[in-house]
Amino acid sequence: MPDLRVCFVGDSFVAGVGDPEHRGWVGRLCERSEGAGLPLTAYGLGVRRQTSTDVLARWHAECSPRLAAGEDRRVVVSFGVNDTTVEAGSPRVEAEASRAALATVLDGVARAGWSGMVVGPPPIDDAAQNRRIATLDRSFADLCASRGTPYAAVFGALVDCPVWSREVAEGDGAHPGAAGYQRFADLVWPVWSAWTGVHDHR
Amino acid sequence: MPDLRVCFVGDSFVAGVGDPEHRGWVGRLCERSEGAGLPLTAYGLGVRRQTSTDVLARWHAECSPRLAAGEDRRVVVSFGVNDTTVEAGSPRVEAEASRAALATVLDGVARAGWSGMVVGPPPIDDAAQNRRIATLDRSFADLCASRGTPYAAVFGALVDCPVWSREVAEGDGAHPGAAGYQRFADLVWPVWSAWTGVHDHR
Repeated sequence: MPDLRVCFVGDSFVAGVGDPEHRGWVGRLCERSEGAGLPLTAYGLGVRRQTSTDVLARWHAECSPRLAAGEDRRVVVSFGVNDTTVEAGSPRVEAEASRAALATVLDGVARAGWSGMVVGPPPIDDAAQNRRIATLDRSFADLCASRGTPYAAVFGALVDCPVWSREVAEGDGAHPGAAGYQRFADLVWPVWSAWTGVHDHR
Repeated sequence: MPDLRVCFVGDSFVAGVGDPEHRGWVGRLCERSEGAGLPLTAYGLGVRRQTSTDVLARWHAECSPRLAAGEDRRVVVSFGVNDTTVEAGSPRVEAEASRAALATVLDGVARAGWSGMVVGPPPIDDAAQNRRIATLDRSFADLCASRGTPYAAVFGALVDCPVWSREVAEGDGAHPGAAGYQRFADLVWPVWSAWTGVHDHR
């Protein structure tokens, strides 16, 4: 079993904001991996309020010391919801700029000799913003398909998930609780499983 | 309840290496805090193999974007075990340099207007190295006492803790599993509780 190290870079969903168990989808995904026989060192590097361009500015400086050692070094990238927040009449980051930021991060991951995977943005409790998130989700999926980068879409399933919607609405309007994050992790699992080679029998 | 944000900076113990549940002492401490009515945004910033001087080099760059917002912003610092590892005949970081690095980080935390707390280094499965860790633990405790910085010592209790010793020995010789990290979190709790004002009834 190679020494696997994975950095998860992104926003508040990566940080697990709202989960009273302080595990988020990242912790739940990693715990399931351990249970399925894949030990790994996971570094959660999500920051609240950050957009794609915010993550672009810091991801390499933070991943470098964490991926200095280990035989199998990987980066999971996940952002987008904050890009679609309208401030002063326009989105914090326009869709084309979001896509360009993702492409630049993935270029950097490849250049460093690491493997990359992308997890799409989830829906929140705002129908107008969700339309923009859905557009971004498709754009990110297309970009990843064109590069051969694994992409775990979660938007389509979560927007129709009663547990997710209820927890987000009862929370701060954006973040779910423990059950929503569990559902998020379950949606990431198939792509993560194919990417890392870990398998369980659920 | 003020919007509390806490960065935990340090080494592999802060990262929870070895915990199959991927929670570590940081996740367990934060979950207990939530259960006791203290919601918080926690950022785990532990990196494997890092010494005090490695943490000194990156802590500020990583804490700054994470503590850009929030009404109550704090930093928990925890390192030292890797400093005491002997390489080429001498410790990776000499005890006086470890203490100076801790003082410099705490100066920076204060200068940024954040609150600081320190968690001491735990024992590992190596008697000679544990003597050096014990010395460092006392040195860090003295430094914190002289500055009025809260210090959670864990060495003395864990070196006599059968669960800790067994899990470390059965693991990689340095890191415990889930039960050991739970014990670690329980030892940090009283100082954390006094520092943050959170209380439960265990």
